Amino acid sequence: MSVDLDGLLDGARRGRARDVARLISLVEDDAPQAAALLRQCAGHVGHARVVGITGPPGAGKSTTTTAMVARLRDAGRRVAVLAVDPSSPYSGGALLGDRIRMQELATDPRVYIRSMAARGHLGGLAATTSQVIRVLDAVGFDDVLIETVGVGQSEIEIAGVSDTTVVLLAPGMGDGIQAAKAGILEIADILVVNKADREGADQTVRDLRAMLALGARTDAAWVPPVVSTVAVEGAGIVDVLAAVDQHGTWLADSGEGERRLLRRTSDEITAMALSLARSRMASASLEALVQKVLAGELDPHEAASRLLDEV
Amino acid sequence: MSVDLDGLLDGARRGRARDVARLISLVEDDAPQAAALLRQCAGHVGHARVVGITGPPGAGKSTTTTAMVARLRDAGRRVAVLAVDPSSPYSGGALLGDRIRMQELATDPRVYIRSMAARGHLGGLAATTSQVIRVLDAVGFDDVLIETVGVGQSEIEIAGVSDTTVVLLAPGMGDGIQAAKAGILEIADILVVNKADREGADQTVRDLRAMLALGARTDAAWVPPVVSTVAVEGAGIVDVLAAVDQHGTWLADSGEGERRLLRRTSDEITAMALSLARSRMASASLEALVQKVLAGELDPHEAASRLLDEV
Repeated sequence: MSVDLDGLLDGARRGRARDVARLISLVEDDAPQAAALLRQCAGHVGHARVVGITGPPGAGKSTTTTAMVARLRDAGRRVAVLAVDPSSPYSGGALLGDRIRMQELATDPRVYIRSMAARGHLGGLAATTSQVIRVLDAVGFDDVLIETVGVGQSEIEIAGVSDTTVVLLAPGMGDGIQAAKAGILEIADILVVNKADREGADQTVRDLRAMLALGARTDAAWVPPVVSTVAVEGAGIVDVLAAVDQHGTWLADSGEGERRLLRRTSDEITAMALSLARSRMASASLEALVQKVLAGELDPHEAASRLLDEV
Repeated sequence: MSVDLDGLLDGARRGRARDVARLISLVEDDAPQAAALLRQCAGHVGHARVVGITGPPGAGKSTTTTAMVARLRDAGRRVAVLAVDPSSPYSGGALLGDRIRMQELATDPRVYIRSMAARGHLGGLAATTSQVIRVLDAVGFDDVLIETVGVGQSEIEIAGVSDTTVVLLAPGMGDGIQAAKAGILEIADILVVNKADREGADQTVRDLRAMLALGARTDAAWVPPVVSTVAVEGAGIVDVLAAVDQHGTWLADSGEGERRLLRRTSDEITAMALSLARSRMASASLEALVQKVLAGELDPHEAASRLLDEV
């Protein structure tokens, strides 16, 4: 299939969602034109702000993301949302209200929404996401919001591709100790206690502030602010966006933004190389090695070494 | 340092915790003797039952694991616990009561407890865990319980090394919809609603059963049972263990156990090969590639391909 890259790029810059979608599909599907696309993007990146939004299921990530998108759009910015969550409202499975609000936004040419499968990429998720961000950046989006579920390995990888990571909690779902257990304090640039009208919200805010003061990140110059929101009513969203702005200023002034860019690019290249290695392994003689290991003829170390030599 | 592998293996078989610990450290540290150790284990594996225990923070995983260990030990079985969670009671950070109960168990020669860092292995966690399980299996443990936090990528990897995966929920932390969102229903062989004396527990059980009946896993012959527990009082633990037994029988009878073994070994070899690739990449000329990508001279695809060629 012939692809008119220049035409797609031009359409995408002018806000045609279909053209944005086709460009992203080239990258996601690892199509033959993906390399050419990334080459053409190379000179046009570095403008977009990437904000990761994560937290446990039920914290209200979809609602918060929707509210943030609406405000950014109203401020005249072009906004893209990448939902790394197969059951987010964009792909079905969540509450009806969320889906309706998101669909309203999705018809706006300044807003682009895409869900990405969290599984199946097998280590290549961060690589794919980085490339999709490059494309969105190159076609002129001002903000890329990445919404992920949970705080596991892949979510931490996604935090690695963001300029600013916002972690959402809700009272009663996890107090400060549980947040620390889940590794949340380490990846958060901004902490949001959503559903702040619920009982226990003040205590959750106090717990988080106390733990931050105890020096979970004493080595860092940036102390994550704790912001309270009631996203379903839009309350506090402006404070979250102000915190994102402040963090952006800090990133630029402190040099941390530059360090993150270097680390992110390094991670991206490594992840892509590993993804490439893995896809080559899938077509290698893995089954014969498995049988030898199960028969006790080969130890797994040696099998792994042989497999790597093959690719 | 010279290591008396035969002596350590003999001591470990006779229940000396120090010798078990030293063998595991060889594997975890990727010591020169690790390959020889795994070769010696090769003929002695296939006996141990591996049970993964996962769920969101606060569901009561540590308490449930402790209660399961106590019962299995009382039934005369040798039990090992691998806690893939830096803040589990075994390494500090959790509630005092948990830690005391666990320490009492840890002095029993038939019980071995080890915490493993969830981070830092960078994709190699599943590989390391698989090898540690091999060692524990070879020195005669009947049960290996793997406790992990959350349900993110690394937890799904850990579910991949278990014969049976137990997912713990607590009422109010996540109803059926949230569980489905987090991908919990897909990895669970057994669902446990802990803290079943709390309000909303019955509803959570009903929600989960309804979602399972709706066909989240209609293609599978095994329908995950939903078991209620109050782990802190030991209530329902016997039902969880009975469900694990039943699942074990099903694994053997259906051939699914054999299929999982093949898949697991294949994943283990692939993960080790990728881990090897990654460690070689760390010492490759990554920084020069990063600079070229940032300067727009090289697209990330090409950089990744060059990096892989180098290792």
